Amino acid sequence: MSEKRIHNFNAGPAALPLPVLEEIQESFLNFKGSGMSITEVSHRSNWFDDVINDAIDRTKRLMGLGDDFHVMFLHGGASLQFCMIPMNFLADGRTADYLDTGTWSTKAIKEAKIQGKNINVVASSDDKGYSYIPKNIEFNKDATFVHVTSNNTIKGTQFSDFPDTGNVPIVSDMSSDIFSRTLDAKKFGLIYAGAQKNLGPAGVCMAIIRKDMLDLVPDNIPTMLSYKTHTDKNSMFNTPPCFAIYSVQLVLKWIEETMGGIAKVEELNRAKADKLYGVFSPDGFYRGTAENGSGSLMNVTFRLPSEDLEKKFIADALAKGLGGLKGHRSVGGCRASIYNPTSMTAIEALVDFMKTFEKDNG
Amino acid sequence: MSEKRIHNFNAGPAALPLPVLEEIQESFLNFKGSGMSITEVSHRSNWFDDVINDAIDRTKRLMGLGDDFHVMFLHGGASLQFCMIPMNFLADGRTADYLDTGTWSTKAIKEAKIQGKNINVVASSDDKGYSYIPKNIEFNKDATFVHVTSNNTIKGTQFSDFPDTGNVPIVSDMSSDIFSRTLDAKKFGLIYAGAQKNLGPAGVCMAIIRKDMLDLVPDNIPTMLSYKTHTDKNSMFNTPPCFAIYSVQLVLKWIEETMGGIAKVEELNRAKADKLYGVFSPDGFYRGTAENGSGSLMNVTFRLPSEDLEKKFIADALAKGLGGLKGHRSVGGCRASIYNPTSMTAIEALVDFMKTFEKDNG
Repeated sequence: MSEKRIHNFNAGPAALPLPVLEEIQESFLNFKGSGMSITEVSHRSNWFDDVINDAIDRTKRLMGLGDDFHVMFLHGGASLQFCMIPMNFLADGRTADYLDTGTWSTKAIKEAKIQGKNINVVASSDDKGYSYIPKNIEFNKDATFVHVTSNNTIKGTQFSDFPDTGNVPIVSDMSSDIFSRTLDAKKFGLIYAGAQKNLGPAGVCMAIIRKDMLDLVPDNIPTMLSYKTHTDKNSMFNTPPCFAIYSVQLVLKWIEETMGGIAKVEELNRAKADKLYGVFSPDGFYRGTAENGSGSLMNVTFRLPSEDLEKKFIADALAKGLGGLKGHRSVGGCRASIYNPTSMTAIEALVDFMKTFEKDNG
Repeated sequence: MSEKRIHNFNAGPAALPLPVLEEIQESFLNFKGSGMSITEVSHRSNWFDDVINDAIDRTKRLMGLGDDFHVMFLHGGASLQFCMIPMNFLADGRTADYLDTGTWSTKAIKEAKIQGKNINVVASSDDKGYSYIPKNIEFNKDATFVHVTSNNTIKGTQFSDFPDTGNVPIVSDMSSDIFSRTLDAKKFGLIYAGAQKNLGPAGVCMAIIRKDMLDLVPDNIPTMLSYKTHTDKNSMFNTPPCFAIYSVQLVLKWIEETMGGIAKVEELNRAKADKLYGVFSPDGFYRGTAENGSGSLMNVTFRLPSEDLEKKFIADALAKGLGGLKGHRSVGGCRASIYNPTSMTAIEALVDFMKTFEKDNG
């Protein structure tokens, strides 16, 4: 059946490594000799303990995290984190700096404001349709954290380096670029990511917290919304999304054992993006929408000379087995999402198609 | 591989219908000719629209719900509902009645109190270790809702009928008995259920809301925690837990098309429970822990003459392919969870084993 699969450039839910899907499929009626599907196994069993603990251990190894970090698997996607972050970290009198670099940043800011929290938007690229990453930002030294959306899935921009925030910890939404490149974990107070882009299927959010951030958490917030609840209970205060966590575990194993770790993955991601951006030129048939130096390695956004040509491009590509190339409905145009599981073969097939399409329609 | 599967009496995550698991397995690398796994398909695609809308339609048909109800698929399990219910329905000046019939009721009450909401616990069976369902309850006529945990997974008790609350809508946690019996939906303002018992895998919570309840929802609560967000966006404000929703869709299809609807399922559930309770007697080898008339059709809890015998019973049963019979860690003893997917064959195998075990060890 795998030979009928397409090259999937969806923004999320997105392509997963084929060996991961095959392993899930193969063991689906009988997980590790339990006589049950992974969907039927108790989350209080040794079978599931092994799954979640292996996923945590691999995360720590891959990111080089010390014992000063907790790895959590939470419900609610990154969108629930937009609410939990200010609720947990901004008790009365505290403030935070937020960077506004696109749709998801804007939503994070909105959720802090709904709760009446005192936050400062210290930089925004709204003036140019979020087509660039702000530089030379002045941060408030007394901020409790700085919130950064590391990669902007919709606008196709990405922080190539994280800004220097001094001693203020960064809280970063890495939903669309977690595990795609090496990081200096010491800078971060919280890293969070909805799984459905670089990590696994939809339905679970990874959150990595530096333990001292837990000192900020008030006692009187709803139990499910407190980071303390989930660090105390190893993400099993209530029944966790077991299948999604199991899938993430297999993706992490694939990164570590098949791909050879994050540095190798990053090298490949840079080569993939270089190849694809190489097709663009400012006045050419394919025009990248991100400013120079701000383009994402994960979500490559571009326009064709007309909307009609874009429609034809997306439809013709799908007919050739290249799916998911439509831009987000809020911005239009085209987008190729090329997360870790997207192979160089898929990029080459796309670039070949783009060249042929330009010849036939340019 | 299916012949090596066990009879699974887990309390949740729990047994799923084998045909459902087989359908998931079979299509796992290529969903409906999309060339993608269901875990890779966009939630904004027609493929996924068909899944979620079919799940909603089947829920409405199976429960006989009119257009005055919305069906939602939410993140966070029933435990997040404990927080969302008072946040959405108890604006300043409003009160609610809660019934305390065991662990999960107690948690629901705790989350209302954490938010400083004005609630009244109008009945409790705490005085006898939650071994019975309270009767003749006096409700407050000015309550906004009455909260009822319809089935108590841990204590093995269940409301055989819902109490008469007059014009006050019932808000019910049905995590462990949804779709197990027919209901008069008109009584309910909200029905919610974590999927991992009667509905599907862990990772999604079904919530069915009567539309007029939405009038109670304040505007200034976090977006992800507002029922209005999820009814407005057909449960796709953010990326939903697609795989879990797909699995629920297949379980609902199985209830409707293979089992013949809820009335048929209820008939079978009553026969299954009768057969199992028939093994118990007040002074016998197997002693039910729920009082007469309060026993659950879903979670059958019982004790043996000693804890050592209970340990041996659980281990010997597993060796015979009967798994998940350990009681909840908070109460000990034994428990057979016999949700919709548990067949009469499984019950017969368990009863046969119980008789043999009693002969050998009694």
